[in-house]
Amino acid sequence: METVMQNETDNGVVSTGSSLIFLGTGCSSALPNTLCLIRPSDPPCNVCYPALSLPPHLNPNYRCNTSLLIDYCENQSDDKHSYILIDVGKTFREQVLRWFTFHKIPRVDSIILTHEHADAVLGLDDIRAVQPYSATNDIDPTPVYLTQFAMESVSVKFPYLVRKKLKEGQEIRRVAQVDWKIIEEQCDKPFVASGLKFFPLPVMHGEDYVSLGFLFGEKCRVAYISDISRFPSSTEYVISKSGAGQLDLLILDTLYKVSK
Amino acid sequence: METVMQNETDNGVVSTGSSLIFLGTGCSSALPNTLCLIRPSDPPCNVCYPALSLPPHLNPNYRCNTSLLIDYCENQSDDKHSYILIDVGKTFREQVLRWFTFHKIPRVDSIILTHEHADAVLGLDDIRAVQPYSATNDIDPTPVYLTQFAMESVSVKFPYLVRKKLKEGQEIRRVAQVDWKIIEEQCDKPFVASGLKFFPLPVMHGEDYVSLGFLFGEKCRVAYISDISRFPSSTEYVISKSGAGQLDLLILDTLYKVSK
Repeated sequence: METVMQNETDNGVVSTGSSLIFLGTGCSSALPNTLCLIRPSDPPCNVCYPALSLPPHLNPNYRCNTSLLIDYCENQSDDKHSYILIDVGKTFREQVLRWFTFHKIPRVDSIILTHEHADAVLGLDDIRAVQPYSATNDIDPTPVYLTQFAMESVSVKFPYLVRKKLKEGQEIRRVAQVDWKIIEEQCDKPFVASGLKFFPLPVMHGEDYVSLGFLFGEKCRVAYISDISRFPSSTEYVISKSGAGQLDLLILDTLYKVSK
Repeated sequence: METVMQNETDNGVVSTGSSLIFLGTGCSSALPNTLCLIRPSDPPCNVCYPALSLPPHLNPNYRCNTSLLIDYCENQSDDKHSYILIDVGKTFREQVLRWFTFHKIPRVDSIILTHEHADAVLGLDDIRAVQPYSATNDIDPTPVYLTQFAMESVSVKFPYLVRKKLKEGQEIRRVAQVDWKIIEEQCDKPFVASGLKFFPLPVMHGEDYVSLGFLFGEKCRVAYISDISRFPSSTEYVISKSGAGQLDLLILDTLYKVSK
């Protein structure tokens, strides 16, 4: 995989090969910070105020929940693209409106979740917004790759996305159609999503919580790690020279530490 | 309560009395419809396309999840305002950015939930975005009024908004601070939120699900009912002439029926 990176201030040039599109690079509460706007300081915040008026591609201060879209083209000769989404946070629908339209992304083929916090999964209800319309839910489900721990959390947050049969007397409601795929929290247990192989990279998200990053790509080796506070040594080994090979690109989104 | 209605295409005049601000009048998937944008028809949809380029107050086609903000001023003489929010759906944060800034709303004093579907509660995580900042969560909680049924659903969707004590070894994470208040699904069991009395109005949301509307106001009697498919006769009686008195304003948002 050869990659071209595109982000919130690119000029919208569409690559014919693979590319990485940063749908969000913000914190869990996203930017602009609403308190800066509804209880403004004097002078007003010069990060959050301009974010309200600029269009998306000129607006580095409007940052949605952290999320990556991999536009994967295995063979440039056939120009067949697959769209793999990492994380579906609270701002997912807005990210579709801002970036899918800009980069001409027509669909999502598969989804990978790093963890089950709100900023990574709370947009799952809106997956239906990128699926074909069917009032009776008679469409192909989108594969979603996640750990067993995340699956248990998602099952109680979105029971209607997991339940296959309606209860007696229950009406059909249109909901996202999902094919849940359990993955392991281990670097040596890869999985394949839409033709691309991913190696899980367990990292600490605070000292009491494990989140996953992912290593992918052959020609260009990319590690994508979001919401990390610390690398366990086993994961550090895998992405370092001493592991399976030199990285070409490390994408790192770090968690801030609360001062006490 | 005397009311002035403000909505998505008003001119931003701030009333000194009470007013009703429609934060959202859209369906559960909101408008614009993302499929109209990422898989455009030829010619493109003339509802969804213009919604991407117009500013909020000139944009009737950009409709977030159904939600009402009551700007309640009990005595015009003291100009003291309370802000009561009905429903906190998936698009809540965006609604704050679009309408709280426009109407100069500085905070939310209390919240009422009609039911526990995603388009009514999935923004609860973002309540922290309108609360004062505290890394240790040491702030006054916002009262949220909801039925026991909704409480049970919210408790599994957002355990960290309900749990009061951290488990051994668990780190402090900044989350919304909420004071949960259970209300009854009965027309004759009113409750008071931020000084204003509300009578619950049970209505059918499909034939297998009960949602609540609310009757409020003394000088001006308002019934707000969202996501309804059918009135039970007991509720119809309460809001009709034969009930407790003629309504001044009926706000009705109806659920569409899926054709089979």
